[in-house]
Amino acid sequence: KHILIVPGDGIGQEVTEVGKAVLVKIAEKFGHEFTYDEALMGHVAIEATGNPLPDETLEKMRNSDAILFGAVGHPKYDNDPTAKVRPEQGLLKMRKELGLYANLRPIKLFDELLGASSIRPEILKGSDILFFRELTGDIYFGEKGRKNDNNTAYDIAEYSRYEVERIARKAFEAARTRGKRLCSVDKANVLETSRLWREVIQALAPEYPDITVEHQFVDAAAMMLIKDPKRFDVVVTANLFGDILTDEASQIAGSMGMLASASVGDSTGVYEPIHGSAHDITGKGVANPLASVLSAGLLLDISFGLKEESEAIISAVDKLLKDGFRTRDIADATTPADKVLNTQQAG
Amino acid sequence: KHILIVPGDGIGQEVTEVGKAVLVKIAEKFGHEFTYDEALMGHVAIEATGNPLPDETLEKMRNSDAILFGAVGHPKYDNDPTAKVRPEQGLLKMRKELGLYANLRPIKLFDELLGASSIRPEILKGSDILFFRELTGDIYFGEKGRKNDNNTAYDIAEYSRYEVERIARKAFEAARTRGKRLCSVDKANVLETSRLWREVIQALAPEYPDITVEHQFVDAAAMMLIKDPKRFDVVVTANLFGDILTDEASQIAGSMGMLASASVGDSTGVYEPIHGSAHDITGKGVANPLASVLSAGLLLDISFGLKEESEAIISAVDKLLKDGFRTRDIADATTPADKVLNTQQAG
Ligand SMILES: CC(C)[C@H](C(=O)O)[C@@H](O)C(=O)O
Ligand SMILES: CC(C)[C@H](C(=O)O)[C@@H](O)C(=O)O
Repeated sequence: KHILIVPGDGIGQEVTEVGKAVLVKIAEKFGHEFTYDEALMGHVAIEATGNPLPDETLEKMRNSDAILFGAVGHPKYDNDPTAKVRPEQGLLKMRKELGLYANLRPIKLFDELLGASSIRPEILKGSDILFFRELTGDIYFGEKGRKNDNNTAYDIAEYSRYEVERIARKAFEAARTRGKRLCSVDKANVLETSRLWREVIQALAPEYPDITVEHQFVDAAAMMLIKDPKRFDVVVTANLFGDILTDEASQIAGSMGMLASASVGDSTGVYEPIHGSAHDITGKGVANPLASVLSAGLLLDISFGLKEESEAIISAVDKLLKDGFRTRDIADATTPADKVLNTQQAG
Repeated sequence: KHILIVPGDGIGQEVTEVGKAVLVKIAEKFGHEFTYDEALMGHVAIEATGNPLPDETLEKMRNSDAILFGAVGHPKYDNDPTAKVRPEQGLLKMRKELGLYANLRPIKLFDELLGASSIRPEILKGSDILFFRELTGDIYFGEKGRKNDNNTAYDIAEYSRYEVERIARKAFEAARTRGKRLCSVDKANVLETSRLWREVIQALAPEYPDITVEHQFVDAAAMMLIKDPKRFDVVVTANLFGDILTDEASQIAGSMGMLASASVGDSTGVYEPIHGSAHDITGKGVANPLASVLSAGLLLDISFGLKEESEAIISAVDKLLKDGFRTRDIADATTPADKVLNTQQAG
């Protein structure tokens, strides 16, 4: 099995190194032979080649069995809305080119982190949500541009029935293996794309009579996620809504630094933390590598079917937390100084 | 002064009655002469006239000095994505026709409700956010439709510099009267409309050197609102992001049932709870009328310049809560049964 490592920008570099080290360790322990290669994407790729997703990287991606990815982004571009070349273009192009239409974001709280969240422990306890975020459509990929002498900007959101159906089926099927509840989130009282979305979900529901389907408007869902997270089991939603809701939901898991994601679809799967490049803490060695470590776990499970190996990773994270070790983002006033780890140590 | 009452659908009817009663009381107490009229909008208007915003209602709106509005919506349409006439069309048309481009949503926690939120009290205490949500542009009002034999749906998001600038100026000016911090929320790493948005904010900032301006991506903001709400003072954002973030932020105030909003712009202002028609609790007499009562307070303050009267309303709500009275949504296990009020009593 050949794994491509794409650290990207900022803390992506720091945490992916740890994620890879865990893969190496697992291979050793369970007797697997993984080979590795590395490639550039994002700001680092722009600096080196002028292109946020160089052809060489894309080629290597296509030739790998799975990809462990970090993050892309740089404040330089964020503060220059007129920049033509941007790190995020590399990320979006990768998703499109590899057909990664399903982004799975499991939001699971490790019991030891009940205290790390801003939400009350009694509201949180027992929360376990699996998000399916559509990843290659919506307003992310429709035509966009300027008109009226650069005085008006536009972005087109678009969905076809086919695009909605394939992500919806994945979500329905996942619900079958879990709590058998599916919540579809849209804004069907305003958006035509959402009305199509809702039509497709409604049309599929009879094929999954064992699943209880609920529709929520995105505004209500954003509220309900915080008010009563246990209400959710599997959630399926469009690209933009999924982006917003899963970042919000990171608070359910105590910290964004704990959340892994899997992007799958037509070919090679990509595994990455849901956090970004976080240039404000880059180079300080304080980034929480557990999202990358758990991403490595998802990679083993989903792309390679290695359940035992994946569970070994989750147990190791659990043990680390039970032993009281914390990176700064999940430490609190009660954490003894000698248990506050830097990025390397947590790995 | 002439006030138009538009109760709309579901609990809109119940809470607006209470909001109006408070206006009547205030006029009596402070010696003002307000006249009232009533008009239909939403599902009730469709039932009566086939039109969610009848011409007669629009005419009455234009002829009033302020509008106290309830909510619109009905599950019938939510479950039928193909319905051609929908209650929400009335709401959106009202916003457009009256030029209500600025939606102000103050998120302020009454200290007595620290326990009613799912967020930890120590995170919440002292939160005080004022949202400026753009209300007549974005993906809400761009062209939308179907193509490819009804198999593809699209929605166009659009913003002009002028539209961004007028809402941004309102937000900058409000920041001046408050904590002098402005957070602009966009998704400039992906959307062209957001890049235009950011350009305009950046171009205006030098005119307000006393205001500290920050830009956040909407996904990060959705997370930060829950993680550290005190970080925010004035927030300005586009229509769709504002819809999502303000509903989410309702948890900062303990309950959506507490939140009032003001929609202002070119002419008559509209004042309404941020909650919806809530058909699940309609007719049970349990709806919290305080959002409508506080909307009446915003009406007096913003449209009529009656500060003292508006403050009298806030004090009355504060006293009601201090005396331990609660509607069901903000009651908890410690609320004695005789202090749990129905909608009328809370008024
Ligand atoms: C970096 C950005 C373009 C990206 C997105 O919006 O998809 C990120 O927020 C994510 O969630 O992976
Ligand atoms: C009912 C709906 C169209 C409306 C909106 O999305 O604007 C509501 O959610 C609101 O926030 O006023």
